[in-house]
Amino acid sequence: MSENPTAAVLVIGDEILSGRTQDTNTNYIARQLSTLGIDLKEARVVGDVEDEIVAALNALRARYTYVFTTGGIGPTHDDITADAVAKAFGVGIDYHPEAMALLAARYKPGEFNDMRKRMARIPKGAELVRNTASVAPGIHIGNVYVMAGVPMIMRAMMEDIMPRLKRGAVVHSATVGARIGEGRIAEGLMRIQKDFPELALGSYPYYRDDGFGVQLVARGRDAAKVEDAARAIEAMLRAQGAEPERVIS
Amino acid sequence: MSENPTAAVLVIGDEILSGRTQDTNTNYIARQLSTLGIDLKEARVVGDVEDEIVAALNALRARYTYVFTTGGIGPTHDDITADAVAKAFGVGIDYHPEAMALLAARYKPGEFNDMRKRMARIPKGAELVRNTASVAPGIHIGNVYVMAGVPMIMRAMMEDIMPRLKRGAVVHSATVGARIGEGRIAEGLMRIQKDFPELALGSYPYYRDDGFGVQLVARGRDAAKVEDAARAIEAMLRAQGAEPERVIS
Repeated sequence: MSENPTAAVLVIGDEILSGRTQDTNTNYIARQLSTLGIDLKEARVVGDVEDEIVAALNALRARYTYVFTTGGIGPTHDDITADAVAKAFGVGIDYHPEAMALLAARYKPGEFNDMRKRMARIPKGAELVRNTASVAPGIHIGNVYVMAGVPMIMRAMMEDIMPRLKRGAVVHSATVGARIGEGRIAEGLMRIQKDFPELALGSYPYYRDDGFGVQLVARGRDAAKVEDAARAIEAMLRAQGAEPERVIS
Repeated sequence: MSENPTAAVLVIGDEILSGRTQDTNTNYIARQLSTLGIDLKEARVVGDVEDEIVAALNALRARYTYVFTTGGIGPTHDDITADAVAKAFGVGIDYHPEAMALLAARYKPGEFNDMRKRMARIPKGAELVRNTASVAPGIHIGNVYVMAGVPMIMRAMMEDIMPRLKRGAVVHSATVGARIGEGRIAEGLMRIQKDFPELALGSYPYYRDDGFGVQLVARGRDAAKVEDAARAIEAMLRAQGAEPERVIS
């Protein structure tokens, strides 16, 4: 799947690393990118530390078609992403006229204070990412999209960003579940993987209150091949005495 | 907080990057480490690709006191973590007698097939990580702990691992919530941050069906200072006309 555009997610925030907050933005971005045929290849989480953000951003933007960051673009002192992005790109940062106008219109006279103005500080040469949930803009510079960490705002920013992205071949998938141990189907699954080298077959065991089982997933660009593999998986499961069940995901 | 032991989490699995599965292991490990005074500094997610696992593992193990990996140690062909760990450390890999014995005892005669035996392949020089949820062991080699991706099994492995870890000074935290815009408290919060340079103050806005607000978090090793900062935050919020509420997290 190497010709598809590729992507990385960079989650920025002490609250993720302290365990205070469960990150859900990576999963959301992953799902959105998959609808565009963009392959998410890596995700990283770093804290609110400028050098860490700069290093991670430069490593990722050199390697992937796109980088999506979340977190650290609000008005408080711990929001340092815009400055880190400017530093990573080696450009200056200043109040952006359009962002200032957007924000000024949002607040009553006297309420547009210096801290709020921080949200209008945009690296030189960057474009704004608008969103319907907040007037504070995200940032688009080079192949990097900088978004808010609050999930509702991040999602609204993705709406603005997605039409700008190159698309690839969408990856199709089929999932077959069965109440059987992974070790009993591993050899059969490996054989099917060999028959379908262009697909990625994955095996995901689960343990629930009502018992254990496995979900077998076939992924690839050719929908017909994915379906053929899913049928081969179903036949293999039946041969092992299990009852396969197609899972709609 | 630089003298505390440090850590990174490396999540391994295509299913996280495709968006199929929401990772919750990083959050769990973060919370467990915080009880030991070990500072989680970074997390990464990579796919089921040997070179990617090797590169990420070598980058992280060189930099942090501990690395915790999750995923890719089952019996199926897509479980390649043990091999990648051996390659990262430049050591061989072979069937581990104790792991073989554990697994053999678990299955009926004839059921301990070649694929299941894959789970006994352990890098040379590594120790086993036992767990109460599964007989398949995790791996401890150097400063790296290799765990299952299934949350229930990963948690049981953490039980075995945690007593082996060096401890640091536990980070205390206090959280104060209020129904107020972040931009109205940003300057006051920055002033409190300057008064408490040894603490990390974070601001986390939220938007819910019943309105918006912010949670302000003070974190640090000195519980008394954390409490002093929380009181200063409460006074600052009251001065802004908001009603602070202490949040038990």
